[in-house]
Amino acid sequence: MNDEEQISWFPVPDEEQLPENLRKLFSKARERIGFVPNVFRVMSFRSERLSAWFAHYKQLHEPTEHLNAAEREMIAVAVSMANGCLYCLISHGEALREALGDPVQGDRITLDYKRANLSQKMLAVLDYAVKLTVEPRECSTHDIEHLKSFGLTTEEVWDVIEIAAMYNFTNRMAHATGMMPNPEYHAMAR
Amino acid sequence: MNDEEQISWFPVPDEEQLPENLRKLFSKARERIGFVPNVFRVMSFRSERLSAWFAHYKQLHEPTEHLNAAEREMIAVAVSMANGCLYCLISHGEALREALGDPVQGDRITLDYKRANLSQKMLAVLDYAVKLTVEPRECSTHDIEHLKSFGLTTEEVWDVIEIAAMYNFTNRMAHATGMMPNPEYHAMAR
Amino acid sequence: MNDEEQISWFPVPDEEQLPENLRKLFSKARERIGFVPNVFRVMSFRSERLSAWFAHYKQLHEPTEHLNAAEREMIAVAVSMANGCLYCLISHGEALREALGDPVQGDRITLDYKRANLSQKMLAVLDYAVKLTVEPRECSTHDIEHLKSFGLTTEEVWDVIEIAAMYNFTNRMAHATGMMPNPEYHAMAR
Amino acid sequence: MNDEEQISWFPVPDEEQLPENLRKLFSKARERIGFVPNVFRVMSFRSERLSAWFAHYKQLHEPTEHLNAAEREMIAVAVSMANGCLYCLISHGEALREALGDPVQGDRITLDYKRANLSQKMLAVLDYAVKLTVEPRECSTHDIEHLKSFGLTTEEVWDVIEIAAMYNFTNRMAHATGMMPNPEYHAMAR
Amino acid sequence: MNDEEQISWFPVPDEEQLPENLRKLFSKARERIGFVPNVFRVMSFRSERLSAWFAHYKQLHEPTEHLNAAEREMIAVAVSMANGCLYCLISHGEALREALGDPVQGDRITLDYKRANLSQKMLAVLDYAVKLTVEPRECSTHDIEHLKSFGLTTEEVWDVIEIAAMYNFTNRMAHATGMMPNPEYHAMAR
Amino acid sequence: MNDEEQISWFPVPDEEQLPENLRKLFSKARERIGFVPNVFRVMSFRSERLSAWFAHYKQLHEPTEHLNAAEREMIAVAVSMANGCLYCLISHGEALREALGDPVQGDRITLDYKRANLSQKMLAVLDYAVKLTVEPRECSTHDIEHLKSFGLTTEEVWDVIEIAAMYNFTNRMAHATGMMPNPEYHAMAR
Repeated sequence: MNDEEQISWFPVPDEEQLPENLRKLFSKARERIGFVPNVFRVMSFRSERLSAWFAHYKQLHEPTEHLNAAEREMIAVAVSMANGCLYCLISHGEALREALGDPVQGDRITLDYKRANLSQKMLAVLDYAVKLTVEPRECSTHDIEHLKSFGLTTEEVWDVIEIAAMYNFTNRMAHATGMMPNPEYHAMAR
Repeated sequence: MNDEEQISWFPVPDEEQLPENLRKLFSKARERIGFVPNVFRVMSFRSERLSAWFAHYKQLHEPTEHLNAAEREMIAVAVSMANGCLYCLISHGEALREALGDPVQGDRITLDYKRANLSQKMLAVLDYAVKLTVEPRECSTHDIEHLKSFGLTTEEVWDVIEIAAMYNFTNRMAHATGMMPNPEYHAMAR
Repeated sequence: MNDEEQISWFPVPDEEQLPENLRKLFSKARERIGFVPNVFRVMSFRSERLSAWFAHYKQLHEPTEHLNAAEREMIAVAVSMANGCLYCLISHGEALREALGDPVQGDRITLDYKRANLSQKMLAVLDYAVKLTVEPRECSTHDIEHLKSFGLTTEEVWDVIEIAAMYNFTNRMAHATGMMPNPEYHAMAR
Repeated sequence: MNDEEQISWFPVPDEEQLPENLRKLFSKARERIGFVPNVFRVMSFRSERLSAWFAHYKQLHEPTEHLNAAEREMIAVAVSMANGCLYCLISHGEALREALGDPVQGDRITLDYKRANLSQKMLAVLDYAVKLTVEPRECSTHDIEHLKSFGLTTEEVWDVIEIAAMYNFTNRMAHATGMMPNPEYHAMAR
Repeated sequence: MNDEEQISWFPVPDEEQLPENLRKLFSKARERIGFVPNVFRVMSFRSERLSAWFAHYKQLHEPTEHLNAAEREMIAVAVSMANGCLYCLISHGEALREALGDPVQGDRITLDYKRANLSQKMLAVLDYAVKLTVEPRECSTHDIEHLKSFGLTTEEVWDVIEIAAMYNFTNRMAHATGMMPNPEYHAMAR
Repeated sequence: MNDEEQISWFPVPDEEQLPENLRKLFSKARERIGFVPNVFRVMSFRSERLSAWFAHYKQLHEPTEHLNAAEREMIAVAVSMANGCLYCLISHGEALREALGDPVQGDRITLDYKRANLSQKMLAVLDYAVKLTVEPRECSTHDIEHLKSFGLTTEEVWDVIEIAAMYNFTNRMAHATGMMPNPEYHAMAR
């Protein structure tokens, strides 16, 4: 692995040629984690799309009372495992380890949340996220009521849905663009 | 079917309580097609999300030289048929009939694009959109080269990917929210 | 679409060369709906088979007290959607719209009967028809008892089975012969 | 196993109460193989249906120059294995052993035709029959041309299709009615 | 079928060149059933592997109080049918007919254990073996408790698991090596 | 995570009660990596089985000229990802990172070997291992010839098969026993 490895099957623009808002986004990422996540660099090939997508995406990871930051990452990794998405398993696997402060539990949830000794609430949330991923036609009002029975608000149930749907978008963007995860992620939050 | 039928398993806000930008969006829809598509009304439950999503989504249907408006709708319906999404099959089925000016061909592509006597180019585009939907791990650089061999630019190949990925998001939002298509669509562009 | 489009991957005989019983069948169809359904024209390549199949098939759509004509069409479209059969979705989708006198409800049942606000009885009937289509080994006496609990007679439960099984035959005949639906269906019963 | 075991989840009429044509059919079966195949007894619950179905079905097993009786049975068992149909695997497995005069080869084709050292022609025929069974939407004109390249006439290619489609009907009738194969089949043609 | 047919896609060593322990194994087989099962001859290509595998495998068919020899063979055939393994269906189908002393029941269990009128205990055992074969991630402690509720000891539940897992090994060895069943099996225990 | 977490859904014997050969095995593991892999502790519930299985298993990881230790671990993780096996992904993921001396490449191969920039030889090897895992009936002599074309000997092709088949055994043992990976693995070879 070196800095010049190919991170996309599409052209990757030079950072300096990007619009100012994206250059700021890249700078902030560098400040916060020391590097620019490849998802930004790969998607900057269509810079307006990246800006629009990210404005939507970032709303979905805002924590709420019954669905905190780590729990939102759990949805990301459960969907990504169902879709087999290398980029998201590595990058959100890292984010989950960090959010939990528990690298073993983070990896376990990433690879098989059913064997990670999760609460009934989170099992129900992740079972639903995976159902929406692999057999979306089967979703019904019963699923919504089931999640509410664990204390989630109506808005939080919607969030489970929208996060799961969003990773069905991003997983496919990563799959089809050949997006490679930054090597830095693997050793972080260990 | 009547005006008061339930269009969502989630609460649907009154239009007058929505932010101004969404009220404008609704008005423009009413002017253009005579009614507000239920996708807007259902997703207005989380109004900021709707605004952000739509700002992204609308970029994807901008026609280009080798991927016109009708061809972009074809990707929408091919993905929606693979996912079995009632809302998108009805609403984008209508959009495709209108874009083609051919109701029979529009319906055929919606239900089985392989039997619609399409060009080799569009067959390749739709085969790829469905592959990305049902077996995303299998996507490779060969798929990208294959689409380019039919004259698509690199940006247009990206668009095929991003449209297909986007309908994997919207299909799942429709499936999980119980989104019902407006009855008006069925008889339009016949 | 024009009159001369290819409706089959197999030769289609001239009507006048067909046996008398089939010429009568074609005439009656023309009287009743104004054209000859392509299923007859395509299958007339093997005219004795067509006669034998149709003698069987037509018995299955005879209405009974707890399974009327529209409900039998619902089984046809639910199976055809599970198999993704263009010909049957278009032609029996039309028949269902007409039988119901409700084009919106007809299309909804055709594309996703689970979201069409059907009675518990019809949901059970269609769930069973789809189960028999996609995982036939799993059928058991419990399924039969379940349908009877909604008031179906033993004969009517058999009919659910035989109709579902029959469309697993006709869907495959349509798929493998390249049978194209008559363009007239699309605008009928709208 | 005894004579009184339950052969159907539906009522089985007394033979003497059946219409004359069916009583003749039963007699002929008894003369030819010593017993009445349970498919007749089970389906006689709806006697008109049985008559109509059988009139159609029997046409499909008429041998032709490039698709003899044994080869037609091979299609029956290949489809029945793909659907996992106990009744048809036992009864048509026996028929194939008898038609071939080779019990080992008959069983091998029944359980896994790909490992039975068949001719390229029969491999192509059975691969197509299974494709039509498990992924019918994927059938195309190429499949038809491929079979013709092995010498099958257009009519014989149609027969491959119609036999495969027919066993998708009969397999499901057997699955859903709880049809049990006659114990006699197991030791016959050994 | 003749003595010289190809039984493997890999070289098959001469018996006299095998280590003594295997020559004894072959002799004992010849004494007991009159021939050497092809699984031994095929796997003797890697003779140490065969010795090690067989030392493990034979432990699994030791009968216990609530899981007798026939019941252990039932697990073998149920897994082999789920995997579609010709070699194991023929050879363990024979072993099951013999163990039961009932050729009809043996074949029925081999081809579709759900329709063989088995006890609730054996249905639960075989359902679990198939679940472990086709959707192993879904296994849970509930499955273990369920089997225990039918009287199986903890050790016997483990045996169900280990036998099912073992046939997922042997089925794949047979599939990938082109292992052909000895013709003798077909007529035995009829 | 602590030392007393539950590592199996079955009883786990005290080490001192195990036969001497297993106590030696445990000691050697402790010397080599500092702890006893949970697979040993879990499987020691049936100690003779563990001994027999391990005697077989360890043969499969012996390196040869064209299939070295790391390449054998690649087969282990590719199969384990196809089966979604938490225990094997964590433990053999670690073994692969160590064998390669490249933690990033090890994780990439573990999660999606197709995107790890592997040689054509290893892509062919892993594609075949996954094919044998998910659609074993489709294996043929062509697969064997294909691997040989990359220089593998006949014995090494057999090893690819036997390793893939073996992980279809061990993955299922882990799935069904609730085997949890030792927490130590996660941070090793980073």
